Amino acid sequence: MQEYCVIASERQKRPSDFQAAGAKEKSTGKCPFCPGNEEMTPPATAVYREDGVCADGEERVRGWFARAFPNLYPAMVPDPAPATADWTALRGRGYHEVIIESPEHGKSPAGFSEEQMQRLVGVYRDRYIHYKKMPDVRFVSIFKNWGREAGASLSHTHSQLIALPLLPPLLMREREAMASWPSCPYCAVADRESSSPRLVAGNRDWILLAPFFSQSPYETWILPRRHYGDLEELDRERCESLAQIMGEGLGRLSRLLKDPPYNLMIYQLSEGYHLNIRIQPVLSKMAGFEKNTGICINTVPPEQAAIDLLDA
Amino acid sequence: MQEYCVIASERQKRPSDFQAAGAKEKSTGKCPFCPGNEEMTPPATAVYREDGVCADGEERVRGWFARAFPNLYPAMVPDPAPATADWTALRGRGYHEVIIESPEHGKSPAGFSEEQMQRLVGVYRDRYIHYKKMPDVRFVSIFKNWGREAGASLSHTHSQLIALPLLPPLLMREREAMASWPSCPYCAVADRESSSPRLVAGNRDWILLAPFFSQSPYETWILPRRHYGDLEELDRERCESLAQIMGEGLGRLSRLLKDPPYNLMIYQLSEGYHLNIRIQPVLSKMAGFEKNTGICINTVPPEQAAIDLLDA
Repeated sequence: MQEYCVIASERQKRPSDFQAAGAKEKSTGKCPFCPGNEEMTPPATAVYREDGVCADGEERVRGWFARAFPNLYPAMVPDPAPATADWTALRGRGYHEVIIESPEHGKSPAGFSEEQMQRLVGVYRDRYIHYKKMPDVRFVSIFKNWGREAGASLSHTHSQLIALPLLPPLLMREREAMASWPSCPYCAVADRESSSPRLVAGNRDWILLAPFFSQSPYETWILPRRHYGDLEELDRERCESLAQIMGEGLGRLSRLLKDPPYNLMIYQLSEGYHLNIRIQPVLSKMAGFEKNTGICINTVPPEQAAIDLLDA
Repeated sequence: MQEYCVIASERQKRPSDFQAAGAKEKSTGKCPFCPGNEEMTPPATAVYREDGVCADGEERVRGWFARAFPNLYPAMVPDPAPATADWTALRGRGYHEVIIESPEHGKSPAGFSEEQMQRLVGVYRDRYIHYKKMPDVRFVSIFKNWGREAGASLSHTHSQLIALPLLPPLLMREREAMASWPSCPYCAVADRESSSPRLVAGNRDWILLAPFFSQSPYETWILPRRHYGDLEELDRERCESLAQIMGEGLGRLSRLLKDPPYNLMIYQLSEGYHLNIRIQPVLSKMAGFEKNTGICINTVPPEQAAIDLLDA
């Protein structure tokens, strides 16, 4: 059985700007993710502006709408010390990047304009392709933690990217299981759920659904109707329609549950997989039973979640 | 790929007596787990007293040191409605029990006397054997959520037992992997870690260690030195020595981290497995990366955790 955990003691030191639970805070002027404070972060690997993409040089580039830079408290680094553990250990070689999604401190992605959401999808795709091509990278995890309860330590809206030197067991198992099916099971799900009581929304290219396999209350998945493996396979039009459905999903969730904490994860592989994006609001805990069995207890049936989300 | 989640809408209604995060509350006299309030719970399936074990009859039995009864907000029930979902679904037949560990409202297991801890181990073993023998039960999950952050909704110290009609995928995968080893890998771990920098404590029958595969900061495992599959295989002496090491583990954790929230899980199977008990303090979140990959990021190396726990 292959299982891994990352030991990253540097991450102990990361700061937080969240106050006591639930407190809404304003920028104190010291947010390292705000325009004007770029020097508080490492030089950007990619600065996204109206006039194109560049990297920070000696001076930080201003006037951006999005910005990606190495995480100061990384889970993975390009040049780690050799593993010193006395058991089987891998050197944790990889990359860990922060993606600032907007220069506005108080902005929530649920309130993004269509153009802002299109830009975000474009940035995700661009950073994904950048890391996917690296020689030692086997998996690129792109995810977003919104809210302290969902694991965010800074409140200014941001996503993260962690590029790994191995295929995570979760994806490995899923891809192996998929290979034993006569055709792609996600394609079958997309087809069947296009007219099910769990469908929340759809456009030409995508559906938004409360999945039958809902691990948490009000979990939603975004599935392409056609078989795409990863973001790189999406052309401009598909990126635009993805932005539309992401905006709709985040907007409905935010209205229904009053801006709940959530995790958004992009599941993708360049081969033998079907791109899917999962949004899991954090309304309950992964507690003893879940850890003992790997089975989640969900108190809201997905059919009810779909009804509630459709109403929002 | 076999994965499951439990849809249990009845559990939405369960009450909580926790105040705002971190608040320590006293009994308001309305705690359903306190002596005198037994009528607030369903009749006990087992009442543990100095003079023996019995079940509640028409009247609730008083004078107990521990008490087990069906959870009022169950994840599984013995006689569920037929599955009405339009996809592949199992009827969620099973049992969900609450185990009150002590009549004292403010008591923490970290402060149990040796006798109290021995009684708790005895109760775990007794309830486990009771459910293990049921015709449709394939797995008995015993776990404890301590503190609101760890998923407890009532603060009076209690454990839970969920008996499932299937072997959870997590255990199934582990048992399959174990079958491919020439001998039990847990036996090898117990042997090797008996003299490793991750050892925290040991007695004749058990070791307490910060495992090499530590998924969270200050996670500890309790492993029997010899190969036992489940609690039923333990005789009285092994139960007593288990109580000693559990008390030591919970005591050290509580002193080091000032009574942190934690999950305690008993991993056991009657065949092809090696009993182990894991205690995971809840100091960080399962966030987007963990959900995207199944890989945990742990900021405290187990060797450091062992040093700190040894000092506590």
